[in-house]
Amino acid sequence: MKTRSVGVIGGGQLARMMIAPATELAIDIKVFAEAEGSPAALAATVVGDYTNFESVLAFARTVDVITFDHEHVPLTVLRGLEAAGISVQPSSHSLNFAQNKLEMRKALAELSVPCPNWAQIEEAAALDEFIAANGGFAVVKTATGGYDGKGVRVVQSSEQVRDWLALGKPLLAEQKVEFKRELAQLIARNLAGQIEVWPVVQTIQRDGVCAEVHSPAQGADLQAAEAIARTIAEGLGVTGVLAVEMFETADGKLLVNELAMRPHNSGHFSIEGSVTSQFEQHLRAVLNLPLGSTQATAKHSVMLNLLGVDDQNTFVEHYDHAMAKAPEAKIHVYGKAARLGRKMGHVTATSNSSVDEALAIARTAANALLQA
Amino acid sequence: MKTRSVGVIGGGQLARMMIAPATELAIDIKVFAEAEGSPAALAATVVGDYTNFESVLAFARTVDVITFDHEHVPLTVLRGLEAAGISVQPSSHSLNFAQNKLEMRKALAELSVPCPNWAQIEEAAALDEFIAANGGFAVVKTATGGYDGKGVRVVQSSEQVRDWLALGKPLLAEQKVEFKRELAQLIARNLAGQIEVWPVVQTIQRDGVCAEVHSPAQGADLQAAEAIARTIAEGLGVTGVLAVEMFETADGKLLVNELAMRPHNSGHFSIEGSVTSQFEQHLRAVLNLPLGSTQATAKHSVMLNLLGVDDQNTFVEHYDHAMAKAPEAKIHVYGKAARLGRKMGHVTATSNSSVDEALAIARTAANALLQA
Repeated sequence: MKTRSVGVIGGGQLARMMIAPATELAIDIKVFAEAEGSPAALAATVVGDYTNFESVLAFARTVDVITFDHEHVPLTVLRGLEAAGISVQPSSHSLNFAQNKLEMRKALAELSVPCPNWAQIEEAAALDEFIAANGGFAVVKTATGGYDGKGVRVVQSSEQVRDWLALGKPLLAEQKVEFKRELAQLIARNLAGQIEVWPVVQTIQRDGVCAEVHSPAQGADLQAAEAIARTIAEGLGVTGVLAVEMFETADGKLLVNELAMRPHNSGHFSIEGSVTSQFEQHLRAVLNLPLGSTQATAKHSVMLNLLGVDDQNTFVEHYDHAMAKAPEAKIHVYGKAARLGRKMGHVTATSNSSVDEALAIARTAANALLQA
Repeated sequence: MKTRSVGVIGGGQLARMMIAPATELAIDIKVFAEAEGSPAALAATVVGDYTNFESVLAFARTVDVITFDHEHVPLTVLRGLEAAGISVQPSSHSLNFAQNKLEMRKALAELSVPCPNWAQIEEAAALDEFIAANGGFAVVKTATGGYDGKGVRVVQSSEQVRDWLALGKPLLAEQKVEFKRELAQLIARNLAGQIEVWPVVQTIQRDGVCAEVHSPAQGADLQAAEAIARTIAEGLGVTGVLAVEMFETADGKLLVNELAMRPHNSGHFSIEGSVTSQFEQHLRAVLNLPLGSTQATAKHSVMLNLLGVDDQNTFVEHYDHAMAKAPEAKIHVYGKAARLGRKMGHVTATSNSSVDEALAIARTAANALLQA
């Protein structure tokens, strides 16, 4: 048997959710986890430090292609793998734009992709000037290391990021966009350049963390969202799944906020809501297999994140209650230790009638999982 | 975290297809496989002999409940587990009716479930009498050990089963039913007695092996099929998924052919074609969790088995070709060594337009997987 194998660096829920489609397609999935008992432990063949080049290289030699659960693997490690002849998908060239927000803005500017106003900031005066020119606010981001609201501050004066400026590393300042809502465009591209897109979705954030996703985003400019994502996927040479997070302004214009080059929280609905899920598509794309249909399986899909409420509830405690109250809900739990605010799982529901019907099912399940 | 764990005896494709829903629901799945490299190897924690009571008991002590990939575990082993306080689902009491076709016929007769004419045969004269009374034919079955056409002979004279009669074990003789088509009713029942049914499906056999499944069976008596399956599930105290294979006669009457007390080939379509797949439902049922919705995700679902054509083709060799030609098809491959006639995988396709559209997609994929 010609076994295809994929090595995933990172043992989080994204690696975990690749296990199901890998099993169905007889793709051998191996995970390089950072700790024992990770969400993807079932497929973990190594527990180690992903910043250690020798460990990662030894793991990479056991698979056909290396891909990722997260974007924290140092570029030096990625480039080392590539120099050793390992297929890294997406490549270090592409990942650089996902890891470094300044590089991302520069590249998107070159591709003429619509973005908020931005500037590279190296000193306080330049930041205060940017703030003055952009309505008295700036969203300041560290170039690297931020996620889920970390490494981001909304400021009215350079004083508020004095600590960051003192580090001597260039920062990214962005216009604080008055957006109507947030959207995300999920797209996949395989090594051969084949592209498939899902319909653009609406994402609802709470405290900087994704809380809800509605697919498709009602009344959004589907064509514009798709065109932006295609330009980025092709322009940056992305392989695998790419999520483009966008702001939609009051007049319906789209501005790119963030990029993620891997399966993404905004695409979890696709496990049930699409003929091909983002996890199956990512595996196909990085193995350079033809991509699957992204046709919706229902008119509306809704996903609610299960965010940790304390250090006790892992969301499996009230299965009896939740499954009895919402037999149509699809419950996904990641097997993580409970922690306030942590992404512990998600619930998806679909409807051919209305987004409200799907929301009602998902909310019934999510609420019941919180308490009996 | 209150981890729920299920132990599956048998490492075949049915155990393999439980891995995906177990992972999504954070159910710890452990498999007692009969050999290394089994289809369910990813979840195998023991490789051993399922007829060895001590091995099976030691495995059972590591999980909350024992269930099955196949029906070959000896009753003595099952009863021993139960005596040791292990939760065995379905129970040895129920499994006896799936393992022994004579016991099954006797129990169904007591439940007044419609069956073909049948008789327990211990000598040649009685069989020849049965043949004469049933149009010159009998379907003779060994009481135990048969599956996929094995242990079954269609005969016109007792001479044709002289070898079986010589073994001195009672045989089952059944009327050769002139059926219009074959149907299968899938049903699930949890420990608390909650029942959910899928719509009855049409199964198309070739050489005694299931080749195609169409869900739902067009024009079948859904109510009658459901009523039969409910009577059996409740009457025999089945837990988990039960498949009731039936003949549909020219006048639309249903007669029970075989029973399987586990996820079944006729229910593979449910992975994509139902809100809750038979594999997720089986896990819920044996853990005594509330059952999920069996609502169809599309008007028509079609499943084609990928049956081995030689000792080379494992059905992954032509993924490029098949995925390019049929991006809507869902391909499932079991990771087995190639062998003529072996169930190597299956393809599912759904359609809201017509069964023919679903069939065309699935056939395109299945044919392409056979040759580039």
